[in-house]
Amino acid sequence: MNKNFTRLLIGSGENSPEIRYLTGISTPDDFICFEHNGTVTALMSKLEISRARQTAKPGVAVLPENDYGTTRSEIIARAAEVLKAEFFEVPPSFPLGLAEKLRGTGIKLQVSEKEFCPGRSSKSPEEVGFITASQRAGEAGFSRAVELLGESSIANDGTILWNNAPLSSEILRAEIDCAILKNGSLPTGTICAGGIQSSQPHNSGSGILFAGTPIVMDIFPRSLESGYWGDLTRTVVKGKAPEIVKKAYIAVKAARDAVKENISIGADCAKLHKLAENILDRHRFHTGVSDGEPFGFFHGLGHGVGLEIHEAPRLSPRSTAKLHGGEVFTVEPGVYYREWGGIRLEDLIYLAPDGTVNCLTRAPDLLTIE
Amino acid sequence: MNKNFTRLLIGSGENSPEIRYLTGISTPDDFICFEHNGTVTALMSKLEISRARQTAKPGVAVLPENDYGTTRSEIIARAAEVLKAEFFEVPPSFPLGLAEKLRGTGIKLQVSEKEFCPGRSSKSPEEVGFITASQRAGEAGFSRAVELLGESSIANDGTILWNNAPLSSEILRAEIDCAILKNGSLPTGTICAGGIQSSQPHNSGSGILFAGTPIVMDIFPRSLESGYWGDLTRTVVKGKAPEIVKKAYIAVKAARDAVKENISIGADCAKLHKLAENILDRHRFHTGVSDGEPFGFFHGLGHGVGLEIHEAPRLSPRSTAKLHGGEVFTVEPGVYYREWGGIRLEDLIYLAPDGTVNCLTRAPDLLTIE
Repeated sequence: MNKNFTRLLIGSGENSPEIRYLTGISTPDDFICFEHNGTVTALMSKLEISRARQTAKPGVAVLPENDYGTTRSEIIARAAEVLKAEFFEVPPSFPLGLAEKLRGTGIKLQVSEKEFCPGRSSKSPEEVGFITASQRAGEAGFSRAVELLGESSIANDGTILWNNAPLSSEILRAEIDCAILKNGSLPTGTICAGGIQSSQPHNSGSGILFAGTPIVMDIFPRSLESGYWGDLTRTVVKGKAPEIVKKAYIAVKAARDAVKENISIGADCAKLHKLAENILDRHRFHTGVSDGEPFGFFHGLGHGVGLEIHEAPRLSPRSTAKLHGGEVFTVEPGVYYREWGGIRLEDLIYLAPDGTVNCLTRAPDLLTIE
Repeated sequence: MNKNFTRLLIGSGENSPEIRYLTGISTPDDFICFEHNGTVTALMSKLEISRARQTAKPGVAVLPENDYGTTRSEIIARAAEVLKAEFFEVPPSFPLGLAEKLRGTGIKLQVSEKEFCPGRSSKSPEEVGFITASQRAGEAGFSRAVELLGESSIANDGTILWNNAPLSSEILRAEIDCAILKNGSLPTGTICAGGIQSSQPHNSGSGILFAGTPIVMDIFPRSLESGYWGDLTRTVVKGKAPEIVKKAYIAVKAARDAVKENISIGADCAKLHKLAENILDRHRFHTGVSDGEPFGFFHGLGHGVGLEIHEAPRLSPRSTAKLHGGEVFTVEPGVYYREWGGIRLEDLIYLAPDGTVNCLTRAPDLLTIE
C-alpha cells in the first residue's frame, strides 16, 4: 500500500454504511473518519466519544475531534498535516460543498473509482449471524401476522374483523412491528398492502383489509445494535383466493424457486433476473407498460443486504454483476396488475464461499389463511 | 428569479430532507429532482412512479426517469438540455462523484451558499401538526413506561421486577416503542439508559434496570406518513431517588424552565445555552473535563426538529442563530456524571410568528415512581 494513501470519510454511523463498516461506531450525527496505512481513526465530539470508544471495532483509534480543530475543514486540514498526507481518497458520496472548501485550502481529494469498501459484499460469518438475527425478528413479525389473520373472521361485506373491529393495514403493521421490537430489531416501514394497493410494490398500505384479495407483507427490520438488516416478503389471502391470485402465486413461487436452484459461484445476476421473467412469462404473467403504468414483473429480482437494505450485488436486467461467493442477497420475484393486485415472495440467500446456497429465510410459504 | 436558475437535487425521500420538503415524495432509493422557475420536477423509476404521483405535493411534476436516460449523468444532461439550463445550483451535500462526472461532460454546478430550502426552519401550521402528532406518539410511549414502572416491584438486590422477571432496558424500550407504533409513528432508537449508562447522553441502554438510579428515556419517533419527528426526554427513578439525583433533577428542571421563559423572537441561541449553563452552575452542577472525559452539561441546549431530527436552529455555545419565529426546537438541558449517572429533561417548543411560545410536550414532569 502506498505510504501516502489516506482515505477520508464523513458521515453518521447510522446513514453511512462505509463508516459503520470501517469503525463499528453508530452515531446519529456525522463524524470524520480516516484510514492511513491500514489504521482507521474516528474523530468524535465530546458527546459521542465515551460511547464510541466502547463500541468501536478492535484497532480503531477514537480521538477527540477538538484536538484537531473546530470546523470540519480545520479538522481535516490538521489531519492531513499530522498524517503528512499528499491527498485523500474519498467515496463518490463525499459532499461536494465540503470538497470545494477543502480544495480551496489546497487539500487534494480524489474520488475512489473502485468500491470504497470492497470487502463489504463478502460477508463474514459474524455478519451472516447479524443478518440472520434481523431476519428472525422479521419472521417473528410474520408469524404474528399469520396468528392474527387466523384469529380474525370475515364480515358479510368481506371486511376482515379482528378483536370485533375491522382490521386495517395500520393495525396489522403495528402488530408485526411490535413482534419485531420484542425480538430485538427495529421495524423500518413494514409494507402491509392489501387489495389494489398490493399492485404497487412499494405502497406501504393503508385502510381496511378485505378477505379474498392479496395482502403483501414486506418486512425489513434493522438491528439497532449491529446495524445489519433482514428482508422478507410473503403474500397471503384471508379466506378463499380467486383463481388468478392462486395462479400468480404458483408462478411467482416457481420463479423464486428456480432462481434459488440456479444460484452458484460465477452466476450472472442479469441472467438470474431473466430466468425469473421467463418463468413468469411461461405462466402467462407478462411484463409491460399500459397507459404509462408498468405491469407484471417490473422491479429487480433482488439485491444485496447488509449494512444497507439495498446494496451490491443488484440482480436486475441491467446488472453486470456476477456472484463470487460470500454474498447475502434477496430473491424476490413479483407480479403486479392494477386489475387484482400483486404477489411477491422474497427469500434471503447466503451464497457461501464454498458455493453452498443457504436460504436464511424460515418463514413458511402459505397463500391462504382460513 | 433568474430564468436560467435551476436547482438540482439527488437523494431519497427518506434520507434527504430537502427532497422530501420540495416534493413530498417518500422513497427508500435515491431519485433526481430539479426546480426550474419555481416548478419542481421529480424523475421516478418505474417502481416508484405510481406511488410518487399519489403522494407528491400539489404542483410537483412527476415524470418517468427513463424518458430522460438510463444513467444518472445521462438523465441530468438531458434535463439540462430540455430546460436550457446554463448551470445547476446544488446543495452542499450533493455527491462529489456524480458532480465530477457531470462536470466532465460540461455541465456546470454551483454549490448553494445559502440554506437550500430557507423556508424549512419556519414551520407552517400543517408542519406543526405533523410534529405534534409524532410528539403525541412519543408521549404514549412515555405513558406506557410510567405505567409499567408503576406495576413493577423492587427485588432485595434492587433489581426492578416486572411480570415476575427482571426488567431490562431492552424490555422497557420494546414496550415504549410498541406504544409509539400503535399511535401511528415509528420508533427510531429510543434511549432507555439506566444507572451509570445514563451518564452518557447517547447511550441507548442495555441490560437490567435497578431501582434508586436515574433512567433516562429519550423518545424520538418519526411519522412514516408525514416524515416529521417528535422529540421528548424524561428521567425517572423507580423507588427512592438519592439526594444528588433529586438535586440534579431540580437544577435541570430549573434550567429548562428558565430557558422556556426567555424564548422570544430575536433571542440569541448561544445566550439561551449560556443561561441554562449558568443556572446549572448556580445549583453546583458544573461542566468540565476530567481524565479526558467530559462531565456536567456537555451537549447543546437544543436543536430544530422537522424533517430531520437535528436541524436548524442549533441552540449551543457556538451557535450564531437568532430566533425569528416559526421555529420548532427542543430545550433539553442535562447533567452527566460518571459517579451516579445523568438527568435530562427535554421539551419541544413552537415559537409562533407572533411571538407566542407554545410547549408541544404534554408529558408530565415526575422524578420518582413508587
